[in-house]
Amino acid sequence: MSIQNFTAYNPTRLHFGRGVVEALGQTVKQYSNKVLLIYGKESVKKYGYYDDVVKQLGNAGIEWIEYAGIKPNPIIEDVRKAVAFGNENKVGAVLALGGGSVIDSAKIIAASIATGLEPWDIVSWKNHPKKSLPLICVLTLAATGTEMNAAAVVQNEKTKEKLGYVNPVMFPKESFLDPQYTTTVPSDYTSYGIVDLIAHALEAFYGAGEPSVIDKITLAIIKDAMETASRLMADLSNYDLRAGIMLDATLALNGLTSYGKAGGDWGVHGIGHEISLLFDTPHGATLSIAYPAWLKLQKERIPERILTMGRGLFNATTVDESISKLEEFFVSIHAPVTLTDIGLTDKTQELLAQLTRNKVSGMHHTLTEKDYKVLTKLMQ
Amino acid sequence: MSIQNFTAYNPTRLHFGRGVVEALGQTVKQYSNKVLLIYGKESVKKYGYYDDVVKQLGNAGIEWIEYAGIKPNPIIEDVRKAVAFGNENKVGAVLALGGGSVIDSAKIIAASIATGLEPWDIVSWKNHPKKSLPLICVLTLAATGTEMNAAAVVQNEKTKEKLGYVNPVMFPKESFLDPQYTTTVPSDYTSYGIVDLIAHALEAFYGAGEPSVIDKITLAIIKDAMETASRLMADLSNYDLRAGIMLDATLALNGLTSYGKAGGDWGVHGIGHEISLLFDTPHGATLSIAYPAWLKLQKERIPERILTMGRGLFNATTVDESISKLEEFFVSIHAPVTLTDIGLTDKTQELLAQLTRNKVSGMHHTLTEKDYKVLTKLMQ
Repeated sequence: MSIQNFTAYNPTRLHFGRGVVEALGQTVKQYSNKVLLIYGKESVKKYGYYDDVVKQLGNAGIEWIEYAGIKPNPIIEDVRKAVAFGNENKVGAVLALGGGSVIDSAKIIAASIATGLEPWDIVSWKNHPKKSLPLICVLTLAATGTEMNAAAVVQNEKTKEKLGYVNPVMFPKESFLDPQYTTTVPSDYTSYGIVDLIAHALEAFYGAGEPSVIDKITLAIIKDAMETASRLMADLSNYDLRAGIMLDATLALNGLTSYGKAGGDWGVHGIGHEISLLFDTPHGATLSIAYPAWLKLQKERIPERILTMGRGLFNATTVDESISKLEEFFVSIHAPVTLTDIGLTDKTQELLAQLTRNKVSGMHHTLTEKDYKVLTKLMQ
Repeated sequence: MSIQNFTAYNPTRLHFGRGVVEALGQTVKQYSNKVLLIYGKESVKKYGYYDDVVKQLGNAGIEWIEYAGIKPNPIIEDVRKAVAFGNENKVGAVLALGGGSVIDSAKIIAASIATGLEPWDIVSWKNHPKKSLPLICVLTLAATGTEMNAAAVVQNEKTKEKLGYVNPVMFPKESFLDPQYTTTVPSDYTSYGIVDLIAHALEAFYGAGEPSVIDKITLAIIKDAMETASRLMADLSNYDLRAGIMLDATLALNGLTSYGKAGGDWGVHGIGHEISLLFDTPHGATLSIAYPAWLKLQKERIPERILTMGRGLFNATTVDESISKLEEFFVSIHAPVTLTDIGLTDKTQELLAQLTRNKVSGMHHTLTEKDYKVLTKLMQ
C-alpha cells in the first residue's frame, strides 16, 4: 500500500512561453562562445525558427557550426558524424533545435564529445559518461518530453536495435519552449505527438507502486491533453491550444509521473520501437497501435488498474469500455490503431519474429513469447 | 486565454521513502567534512531522529557543530546566532533537521555564512546573496514544502515583520523525506500541516493566468490531501497515509502548481503571517481561519474561479457551497476557522491595525483597507 521509495531530481531550467527564444543568446553565452548547432529537416529554416536562433547567436557574439539532417527516427551514424565534427571544431556546448529526434541525438553527441566515449557504447548501456557538454534546447515539437529529462532514444541500423539510454548528465541545462514554434507542425505529427505524451503518462501509470497522488496527477495530464487535442486538431495554428499540449508533453515525462512508480513500465514503447525499426513508422503512430492491444492483453491481469484509468479519463464503468474509449480517442485524432491502418496488414509475422528476437518486455509487466503472438494478432 | 510565460527550475534532489536517511552520511560528505547541524525542539532527540542523523555523520567521518532551539515561528535572532557560530567554526555546509521553521532558518543561515550578508538584509529583500553554502535537509514535518523550494519565511520581533524571501541559491541541494519521521507529529500540527499544504496549492490556484493543466494538477493534489487527511487524523502513525501527505506537501509548493500562475496570489498567507506575528499562532492555524474569510470576500469578484475549485474538490454546484465545503473540511480535521476558535475573539481591532500598517495584499488580488475590515469581521 505504500508509495515506493524514489529519488526526484531534475535540474533543467525550462523557459516556457511566447518569445522566450529572445533570451537564447545571452543564455547560451553563459556556457560557451562556440557551439555545435544540431537540427533535422529544412522545416526549421522554412518557418524561420533557424533564423531566430542564429540571429540570437550572432547578436550574442557566439560562434557556431552546424550539423543538419537528423532523421525523425534518429540513427547512430548521424550522432557519430556530429561528434567527429564537434571534436574537430572544439565546441564548448551543444544547441539542439528540433523535436525529440534532434534533442535525443544532441544528448548523446554532447556526452560523447565531453568524454570521448563511442556513441553506441553509450546508447547500449556499455559505457556511462560521467559528464557532458552543456546542452541547450529549442523545442519545435510537443511530444517526447526530452526537453526536460535525461533520456535519449537512438537506433542502430546495423544491429537492428532502437534503444533508450538514461543518465543524469544528459539533462539539458536550459530548454526554450515557445508554443509558436509548434503551430506549423502538420496534422499527422501533431496527432503522433499527442499520442506519444499520453503513452508516456500511461507507461508511468502502469508502472509498479501503489495508487497515490501521482496517479491523480498523471490522469489530470492525460485528461487535459485529450480535451485540448480535440480542439487543437480542428485549429492547428491556435497558440493557446499548442501551449496546452506543449506543457502536457513536458509534464508527462519530466519525472513527475514516475515518482513512486519504479520508473514505469515501458513495454508498449518497447513494442513501438520494434515497429519503427522494421518499417520506419513514426514513433507516435506505433504507440496508438500498441497501447490498445497491450491493454486488451492485460485486461484480465490488471482489471482494477485499467478501470481506474477508464474512470478517471472517461467515467467508464467497465474495463472493456476503458480500453475502447482510449482507442476511440486515438481514432478521433486520426491516429492509427491497427497495423492495417498504416498498410502493414501482412507484416505481423515479421514483427512477431522481431519482438521474439529482441525479447521485448516491460519493466513491471513482463511479456512472454505467447504474449507476442496475442499482441501481434490484436494489433493486426 | 494563454498560459502565462514562466520559468521552471528546481535543482533539489529529493530522496523519498522509508529508510532514505541511511544514505545521508555519504551524501553530506560529497559537500563538506564539517557541517552546522540546525534543529528546533527536543522532540527530534526524543524520537531518535537526531540519533539517526548524527550516527550518519559519525560513520561518514563528518565533523559537526550544533545550533538548537529554532522556534516554530522562527526568529531572526536565532538565525544571526547560528551564522556567527557557523562562521567561527568555518563550516562547509548546513544540515537542517526539522520542519519549515528549521529549514527556512537554515536557508538564510547558509546564504549569510557564504556571503557575509546580514541575515535580515536578506530576508527583507535588501541584499541578495549570489551564493550559499550547500544545504542538506532532513524533514520531520509535512507542511511547508520548503524542502524543495527556494523560499524562507522568518520573523523579526523588533520590526514586527514576518517576511518571505525567495532566491534560487537557497534551493536545498538534497532533501531526505522519510515519512516515518512524521509519524510522531501530534494531531494539531498534523492538521496545521495539511491546512498549510492545501493553502499553498490554493495560493497558486488563485494566482494570475488562465486555466490550464496546472489547475487540474493543483486540484488533484488538494483532493488527494483531503482524502488522505480524513483517514490520517484517525490513524496518526500510519506510514502510508503519512507518505501520502508528505508527497502532497512537497508537490504543493515545489514550483509545479505555479507554472503559468505568475507566482500565485499569497494574500491569505500575508494575513496569516500577521496573525502569527501578533499572537504567535501556528502558521497552519492562521490559514484555516483566513482562507474561508478571503474566499467570502472574493466571492462576487471571482465566482467562476471559486466554483471551479468547488466543483473539482467537492462536486459543489454553487460558490457558497464551494466555500462552505472547504470550511467544513478544515473543521473536520480540527483546524480552527475563526479567531474565536483560538481564543482571539476580542483581537480583531489589533489585527485590523496590523493589516493596515503592513499594507497586506495579494500579488494578484489586491486588498484594500475596506477589505481588511470585511476580512477581520469574517474571521471573528
